[in-house]
Amino acid sequence: MAEDDVVFVGSKPVMNYVLAVVTQFNSGAKEVKVMARGRAISRAVDVAEVSRSRFLGDVHVKDIQISTETLNTDRGETNVSAIEITLSK
Amino acid sequence: MAEDDVVFVGSKPVMNYVLAVVTQFNSGAKEVKVMARGRAISRAVDVAEVSRSRFLGDVHVKDIQISTETLNTDRGETNVSAIEITLSK
Repeated sequence: MAEDDVVFVGSKPVMNYVLAVVTQFNSGAKEVKVMARGRAISRAVDVAEVSRSRFLGDVHVKDIQISTETLNTDRGETNVSAIEITLSK
Repeated sequence: MAEDDVVFVGSKPVMNYVLAVVTQFNSGAKEVKVMARGRAISRAVDVAEVSRSRFLGDVHVKDIQISTETLNTDRGETNVSAIEITLSK
């Protein structure tokens, strides 16, 4: 779920990812990227907002990027939206 | 669904909102804001990406803002995430 300073949001509860974000900042990260695809995008926004407003008062949203990624599935190629939210101290 | 240059994304199919965005730009808008709350946030990102990449080659994502809104429901106050994507020519 969390590589160096990146938290990939999937289908687990929001608080799992909030904990990952808070842990990254508490262990010294200056920036953490919250990333997600498809329907998990809404959850990624929740994660960024809850982390920032409830747990990390000194962290702000530095940048938000959206894009389209092409996935290879057993039914051929399919496009899916993606989001990358950069949180920064 | 569409006020002046704002498209509120809800639970309808993505293409309904893409059509609204394209119509706004074709009738002279320089900027269109795509807005959504909660689980519709993922669909709003789809709308922005599909509009931009398939129908409006000269339009780019100018800005993306996320926030938390407090809603009054019959079960009291509840927080919900929101997104505002500004598309611009």
